[in-house]
Amino acid sequence: MRPGVGISPGNVPVYYGGGHLKAVERRVKVAEVVLRWVIFGLGVLGAALVSSDTQVREIFSLEKKAKFTDMKALVFLVIANGIAAGYSLIQGVRCVVSMIKGSVLFNKALAWAIFSCDQVMAYTTLAAVAAAAQSAVLGEFGQSELQWMKICDLYGKFCTQVGEGLVSSFVVSLSMVSLSGLSAFNLFRLYGNNKGKCSGSW
Amino acid sequence: MRPGVGISPGNVPVYYGGGHLKAVERRVKVAEVVLRWVIFGLGVLGAALVSSDTQVREIFSLEKKAKFTDMKALVFLVIANGIAAGYSLIQGVRCVVSMIKGSVLFNKALAWAIFSCDQVMAYTTLAAVAAAAQSAVLGEFGQSELQWMKICDLYGKFCTQVGEGLVSSFVVSLSMVSLSGLSAFNLFRLYGNNKGKCSGSW
Repeated sequence: MRPGVGISPGNVPVYYGGGHLKAVERRVKVAEVVLRWVIFGLGVLGAALVSSDTQVREIFSLEKKAKFTDMKALVFLVIANGIAAGYSLIQGVRCVVSMIKGSVLFNKALAWAIFSCDQVMAYTTLAAVAAAAQSAVLGEFGQSELQWMKICDLYGKFCTQVGEGLVSSFVVSLSMVSLSGLSAFNLFRLYGNNKGKCSGSW
Repeated sequence: MRPGVGISPGNVPVYYGGGHLKAVERRVKVAEVVLRWVIFGLGVLGAALVSSDTQVREIFSLEKKAKFTDMKALVFLVIANGIAAGYSLIQGVRCVVSMIKGSVLFNKALAWAIFSCDQVMAYTTLAAVAAAAQSAVLGEFGQSELQWMKICDLYGKFCTQVGEGLVSSFVVSLSMVSLSGLSAFNLFRLYGNNKGKCSGSW
């Protein structure tokens, strides 16, 4: 493998054997592309599962309908999944293009933008999953101390589908968490302590 | 300011003017110490506010008591705050010691450990706040579609104190999020692309 070349501030050319680091870079890139497309797919799936979920039950000749808008946390989950999917589609395309071009991310402004967006998405999707999971637990088990009845005995099919959507969303948020770690790596290594073309220009 | 000295793999001493980067390092260190102690203080406060919260009401000569264990999300919040406070106490002491010693974090294993723990704590505290906030919203507004009554009309004082605990916990989770950004910076800059003593030993 061709060694990378760095120029020290004293203009002494310093050769370094960057083979190992390049292999790491390649792995990081592949992982990023895979995760972005996983998030896109599962984000769409999660949003579709939850938002299409309804069940009608007849109780004492009274028709009652459960839908995802009955729980605000599920609405938040659908929105978060939708945004995550849309964002990952855009980023996924960017990743594929940069892989085809073979370009490496050295632009600090872009690295900061990607890092920030990934962080926001990771925390948003995780918060949405946590809130929806809390609602789901209340639906499944109720909270007798507060006279909140369990509803999943009544709307079994509805609850199962919400559960499937939650699992999908949970994988989305885990993938976003991993991605935000990768984009942190991509950003902060530009601030390496070993002064060169990339570091120290805060 | 004394310039830092790096040794290139070819054993050519390379001087670099690390003044700017050192200033950044100092600021990062100070921010880390402040955030760790803020988390410790507010974590203890949040856990204390929520766990000590009770209210007794008499309804038709029937005594009813609201306590934080009635909502599992609040129990999770108290535990998460407690762990965050304990963890931050240990880390806060480590930070102060390393500041007094004037040592810089170059140990990759330690940087990885701190980064991983900070990430886990950030996501855990945020998930706890999201779940508790969802419960709080249900308590405040109820969910009429599911016959879940609002309880804050009845237990006003209880709900106010939970709200205060939630605000405190939210600041804890925001601080943990910032900290996990700082520890990502501390870790990944060791993998700077500009080969030197610190990078490329994956």
